[in-house]
Amino acid sequence: MCDPRSDARLQTTSAAQPSRFVPQTGGIWRFMERLPLDAGPIHFPLHVGDTPLLAPGMLRAAADMPALWLKDETSGPSGSCKDRATALLLEDGARRGRDTVTTASTGNAAVSTCVGAAAMGMRAVVFVPAACDSGKLEKMEACGADVFTVDGYAAGAALSGQLARRFDWIDRNDANPVTLEAIKTVSFEIWEQLGARVPDVVVVSVGDGTMLSGIARGFRELRERHASLRLPRLIGIQAAVCRPLVCRWRGEEPAAEDLNPHATAAEGLAVVEPCEVDRTLADVSATSGELLSVTEAQIAQAAVLLATKSGLLVDPAAAAAFAGVRVARATGIIRRSDETVVVITGRSTTAPAGGHGQRQALAPPTIEGFERAIAARAP
Amino acid sequence: MCDPRSDARLQTTSAAQPSRFVPQTGGIWRFMERLPLDAGPIHFPLHVGDTPLLAPGMLRAAADMPALWLKDETSGPSGSCKDRATALLLEDGARRGRDTVTTASTGNAAVSTCVGAAAMGMRAVVFVPAACDSGKLEKMEACGADVFTVDGYAAGAALSGQLARRFDWIDRNDANPVTLEAIKTVSFEIWEQLGARVPDVVVVSVGDGTMLSGIARGFRELRERHASLRLPRLIGIQAAVCRPLVCRWRGEEPAAEDLNPHATAAEGLAVVEPCEVDRTLADVSATSGELLSVTEAQIAQAAVLLATKSGLLVDPAAAAAFAGVRVARATGIIRRSDETVVVITGRSTTAPAGGHGQRQALAPPTIEGFERAIAARAP
Repeated sequence: MCDPRSDARLQTTSAAQPSRFVPQTGGIWRFMERLPLDAGPIHFPLHVGDTPLLAPGMLRAAADMPALWLKDETSGPSGSCKDRATALLLEDGARRGRDTVTTASTGNAAVSTCVGAAAMGMRAVVFVPAACDSGKLEKMEACGADVFTVDGYAAGAALSGQLARRFDWIDRNDANPVTLEAIKTVSFEIWEQLGARVPDVVVVSVGDGTMLSGIARGFRELRERHASLRLPRLIGIQAAVCRPLVCRWRGEEPAAEDLNPHATAAEGLAVVEPCEVDRTLADVSATSGELLSVTEAQIAQAAVLLATKSGLLVDPAAAAAFAGVRVARATGIIRRSDETVVVITGRSTTAPAGGHGQRQALAPPTIEGFERAIAARAP
Repeated sequence: MCDPRSDARLQTTSAAQPSRFVPQTGGIWRFMERLPLDAGPIHFPLHVGDTPLLAPGMLRAAADMPALWLKDETSGPSGSCKDRATALLLEDGARRGRDTVTTASTGNAAVSTCVGAAAMGMRAVVFVPAACDSGKLEKMEACGADVFTVDGYAAGAALSGQLARRFDWIDRNDANPVTLEAIKTVSFEIWEQLGARVPDVVVVSVGDGTMLSGIARGFRELRERHASLRLPRLIGIQAAVCRPLVCRWRGEEPAAEDLNPHATAAEGLAVVEPCEVDRTLADVSATSGELLSVTEAQIAQAAVLLATKSGLLVDPAAAAAFAGVRVARATGIIRRSDETVVVITGRSTTAPAGGHGQRQALAPPTIEGFERAIAARAP
């Protein structure tokens, strides 16, 4: 994709016969001239990008942050921010005649890869930790993918990268720098949605660090093009039980309890050896940002707040970002009036634990029965 | 909402304080002048409408339908087409100072109501059949709603309507004709997305009949405004085990096995007494359309095809619509070249049964181990 020797002509492959496809123009493809992709019709058939920037009134009130925004990546075809890089890499791969894609993932990237591969008529070979969420595993299988469970994300990432090189498969791993090129479209959209303006702060959870670095790249490009004079402060959030980057940021040697991927509900943050260490630290530093960690309890509370105050049912990794906002707000890192965008990176497969509603059977279903049921409840 | 005596001024309520809200303009609100809502800023904070119209290349090939389109309502905030009516009714209700919404639902409308109510700071009181999908029940609870399980959809619908009248709550039931006004925006979007043209055929699954009738209304309005000279044929799909409208359409007296809501996996179609009987029959008739039923096996097969050939993981009720397309195609009701839009009404909470991928553990994670695992598989 970044190889200038590549053949720029559109290749007709069995996976993507032009006659069956209608070229796409919306979503991330609106930024074609900023993407490392040759000009030509887009075959990837799912709609990726153009995700909402929500102004969640009740959540703003609950958090006492009148300028809080949620960049809602849960509306993508597979329900996570991972769809952007999937689309870019599969589009490029189809043009090169490739028919197989591989990735290693803590969950979301693998689901996105399987969904995208199904839509493109490609084979997906994905590697996920054995502890991967069963709902996500079922989605991968439902799309017809070859799914391998391995002992930890790092082992899968190494193998997936090797297989991509050995067999010339599409390499949809976070370590592929092209992923950053796709993610930067998040920043372009935020800038557009705020009315050609960048926010004061952007908060995103950090596993491999690709989301944060991709977003940093997008805002840098906006500044280079004079669309903005400044960069937003980037605040990255890790789980307290798995925070290699936070330790590096603080110059501390991580202890065993700082590197326990099995101890967090936020699968996307269960990364002990992030592939974007130096880049993430540099991006945070260059924007006068911060790296913070949040506890499992804070993540769970944030998920409940997002559900009950904004109607968003999100992945723990996405909830972690909002948990981080609350920590940053409480410690003065974010001021009340700061225009703050939280990137909601993924949809939940299961509802957050500890549902705050009440459920009961009602028989017979009458107004009187209803009133008795309500009256009998503890206040 | 349709009451001309209503106070047109925007009311400030505790549920929706303007200072916390940023007015919305996209999605269904682009059609404000066609909606039964007074002019004024929109407070509903979730993005509803503007769902993709997908050209699924691999599915087109698999179904041998080169002009097949999928109107993908799964990208809405709660993952179903129900979000459109929820948004319109909650926006109107908030302006009238109402703080509670009620609905009865087979599943999707209740989830949508709970999600929307949470975002608006309202109380949701919802009634669902005891057999409702547990994933959907968990979502309702996670949003903080009051959830009551009752013996069947009809009993809940009756009670919900009574409560709305008794307590002046927002009535977000399919029987509320305002739901049709919201649903018609689906047709406006299809017309836009096809380049100011209506398709030959629109296929939608039919429970209460509101989707079909709302879509019919939208296309009628387009014709009235001379945006189109014709109406698409509307084809409604029911489950073979619960097909009251198909029997009425054929002039047949339904047998017990035609009215068994517990026998279908498609919860949204488990409606024995649809609220839009006459309207649905008239709309189908007026467009030279058809009402068909599909078996449970056909629904399951359609879900697998949608997953493996388009990457869409959908509700059985949505899969039923695509199953119906295949039946209509096989029987000549739809021709190969007909430009056909299938409305994908909702996202799955669980992956379709019988995942077609393969999953296995891989240890150690090496290229050699991978090759052995692949070689050992049955072809």
